[in-house]
Amino acid sequence: MIYLDNVAGTKPDQRVIDKMIPYFTEHYGNPSAHFYPIGREAFEAMEAARVQVADFIGATADEIVFTSSGTESNNLAIKGFLKNSANKGKHIIISEIEHFSVDTVVTKLINDGYEITKLKVNKGGLVDPADLEKAIKDETVLVSIQYVNPEIGTIQYTEELGAICKAKGVTFHVDAVAAAGFVEIDVNKLKCDMLSIASQNFFGPKGAAALYIREGVKVSGLLDGGFQERGYRSGTENVPAIVGMGLAAEIAKAEMAEYVPKLEAMQKKLWDGLGGLFDFLHFTGHDTRRRPGHVSFWIEYIEGESLLMWLSLKGFACASGSACSSNILAEDEDDLVASPVLTAVGVPTDICAGSLGMSMSRYNTLEDIDKVLEVMPETVQKLCEMSTMYNQK
Amino acid sequence: MIYLDNVAGTKPDQRVIDKMIPYFTEHYGNPSAHFYPIGREAFEAMEAARVQVADFIGATADEIVFTSSGTESNNLAIKGFLKNSANKGKHIIISEIEHFSVDTVVTKLINDGYEITKLKVNKGGLVDPADLEKAIKDETVLVSIQYVNPEIGTIQYTEELGAICKAKGVTFHVDAVAAAGFVEIDVNKLKCDMLSIASQNFFGPKGAAALYIREGVKVSGLLDGGFQERGYRSGTENVPAIVGMGLAAEIAKAEMAEYVPKLEAMQKKLWDGLGGLFDFLHFTGHDTRRRPGHVSFWIEYIEGESLLMWLSLKGFACASGSACSSNILAEDEDDLVASPVLTAVGVPTDICAGSLGMSMSRYNTLEDIDKVLEVMPETVQKLCEMSTMYNQK
Repeated sequence: MIYLDNVAGTKPDQRVIDKMIPYFTEHYGNPSAHFYPIGREAFEAMEAARVQVADFIGATADEIVFTSSGTESNNLAIKGFLKNSANKGKHIIISEIEHFSVDTVVTKLINDGYEITKLKVNKGGLVDPADLEKAIKDETVLVSIQYVNPEIGTIQYTEELGAICKAKGVTFHVDAVAAAGFVEIDVNKLKCDMLSIASQNFFGPKGAAALYIREGVKVSGLLDGGFQERGYRSGTENVPAIVGMGLAAEIAKAEMAEYVPKLEAMQKKLWDGLGGLFDFLHFTGHDTRRRPGHVSFWIEYIEGESLLMWLSLKGFACASGSACSSNILAEDEDDLVASPVLTAVGVPTDICAGSLGMSMSRYNTLEDIDKVLEVMPETVQKLCEMSTMYNQK
Repeated sequence: MIYLDNVAGTKPDQRVIDKMIPYFTEHYGNPSAHFYPIGREAFEAMEAARVQVADFIGATADEIVFTSSGTESNNLAIKGFLKNSANKGKHIIISEIEHFSVDTVVTKLINDGYEITKLKVNKGGLVDPADLEKAIKDETVLVSIQYVNPEIGTIQYTEELGAICKAKGVTFHVDAVAAAGFVEIDVNKLKCDMLSIASQNFFGPKGAAALYIREGVKVSGLLDGGFQERGYRSGTENVPAIVGMGLAAEIAKAEMAEYVPKLEAMQKKLWDGLGGLFDFLHFTGHDTRRRPGHVSFWIEYIEGESLLMWLSLKGFACASGSACSSNILAEDEDDLVASPVLTAVGVPTDICAGSLGMSMSRYNTLEDIDKVLEVMPETVQKLCEMSTMYNQK
C-alpha cells in the first residue's frame, strides 16, 4: 500500500513510538500524583514534552495546553475564548473553507446571537487580507482562519492576516493542524493569539494535540474537574501520547529543512505528471502557496469517490474531500455531496463530481509517484468509460 | 517500588500494550477514511473495541461513546444531557463526595439558574436511598452519584438509587470510573441512563474512556466538528488507546472473578494488620461495602501527606486524598486542605490532618502487604515524634 492521505493523519515515527512505550510499561503513574516517583516521572516527561512543543512553534511552555485532538483544540480556542468575551462584541470572522471543527462551532453560535462573517476565498483558496481588514468592525471579537487547508493544500497569507488582527486589536486563532510538520510555524511571526496543532498530523500518535494560548489571552476550559493543564483542560493527561507528541515536534523542527524539499520534488513530479497525462484534469488550490507534498485535483465527468475506490483497489490510499467530513456525508445521504471547499473555490458542479487529494509524507518516495502516474491513465480511462456524464458529453 | 495507588491509575496490562502497538506502526489510518484498507482497519478495530466495552458493562455497542478521560465522560454526561433538558426543570442531585469532574461541573451550573442538592453521606460514605427519594422533585432532571469513591473506597447502593430514579422517571448518571475492573458493572442492574468508565483505571491505557448512553437518552456533544462517534464526540479517535481499552475491558470481564478474591485477601490482611498495629488509626469508608483491595485511614495527629512522603521514600506509592485533587490543593495554598470527602464522612478535623489511601491491583501480592505492615510502625513512630499535635496532646 502506498499511503498518500497524510492530511488525514501520518504514520507515527518509530522513534516516537519507542519513546512512548516506557510510559505504558514503566512510568505509568498519574502525573497529578506528585508524591511518589512514578507520578513525578510522568509529570516531568509531560513538562519536557510541553517545552518541545513550545519550541516547535516559537512559544513558551506555559502557553501550551495539551488536548486530545485538533478538533478539541479548535473547540477550546473558540468556545473557551468566547466565554470571556461576551461583553466585548458578538461578531466572528472565519473563512469559507475552515475545517468542520471551526465552521460547525462558529455556525452554531448564531443561535447564541453571534454574527458570523465567512470570508470568501479566491480560486486558489486564498483569503484576501484586504477583505479581512474590511470585515473587521468594532464588535469583532475573534478571527479564526486556518493556516493550511487539508483538502486543497492552500497556505494562507497568515502573517498578513495576523498583522491586520494585531493592528485592529482583534484576537486571532489559527487552525494549523494541516500545517504543522509541513510548513514552518512561528506564533510570533504569525502574530496569532491562539493556534491549534495535532500530533497525528506530524508523525506523532493520535490522542495528543495542543492549543497555544498567548500569555494574557483569557480562555476558559471546556472540561471541568481536577484542574489539570492549569484549569484549561481537566482530566488525567494522556502521558504516553503527550511524550510522543513532544518528540514528534522536536523531530519535525530538526528535520523539516531536510524532508520538505523532498516533498516538494515529489509534489512537482506528480503535478507535472498528472498535468501532462490528462487535458480534462484540473488542479485545486494554489499553484505555489501549497503544502509541500500536497496535490489535489478533479477530473471532468469522473466521480472523486470512484477514482478513490479504484486507486484503493490498486494499493493507493488517497483522500476525497476531507477525511473528517466522511462521517457527515454518510450521515446525510449515500450520494455525493459537493464539498464546501470545492464550491468555495469555484469548481463548476455540473462537470465536477468530486476531487481527489494526494498528500505525501517523508515516508514517500519519487518511486511512489512513478507508480501513481503509471496507474492513473488506465484507471481514468476505465472510469470515463463507466461515466454516464462522460458518455453524454 | 510497590504501587498502591491504583485508584489514580493502573499499570496497563502487557497484553493490552502488545495489542495497541500495531495501531501505531501498521494500522495507523484515520478511522474516518473508509475508502482504503488502512482507514477501514482502524475503524473496524475501534468498532470491535466498542463491542468489548459494551459487553463489559452489559450495554450494546451503539450505546458506547468513546472519550479521552473519565473527566470528559462525566462532563459530556452532565453538560451534554442538560443541553436537551433545560425545559424540563433545573434541579440536579449529586452526593457530597463526588469526583471533582462531577462536583465542579454541577456547582458551576448554579450560575445558569440550576438548583443543586448534594446528598449527605453517612460515616461509611453511603448515600441513604431514602434521602434520594425525598430529594427528588418535579423539577429534578438529573441525578449523578458515583459507584465507588476513589478516596474512601465506598461502594454505593447504586442499584437501589437507580431503581428510585427509574421509578420517579429521573435520568441517572453513574460515575463508575473507580468501580470498573474492581466491581461488577451491569447498566441494566444499576438501572442507569449514563455511566462513565476510564480505561486507565482497569489496566488499559490513558487517553481512552467511555460514556454509556442508554438508547433513547438525548445527549448533545461538547466537541463539534467531523461528526465522529455519531456526533457525540467529534475529533479523530485515539484508535490505539481505544483498541487497548477494548481488550482491557474483555480481560477485566473474564478475569475479575479470579483476581477480585485475591484483592479481598490483601485488603483483609492490610486492614487487620493496620488495625492491630495502631490504637489511634481510624479507617475511612465502609467496613464491607468497599472496593476490593482498597484500604483508607487516618492516624490521629499525623499528617497524611507526611506519611505519604515517608512511605514514598521507603518505596511505596500511596494516595492522599484524590490524585485528581492534587492540582487544586496546590493551586490554593501550600498547606493541607481538608479533603471534602473526609469532612463529609465526619472525620474530626481537629485531630485528623489528612488520610492515606492504599489501593491494590492484580499486580500486588500478599508479600507487598507484609512489607507495608513492616514499615508502618517505625514510620508512624517517627512521625509521631515529629508531630507538634501529638506532642501537645
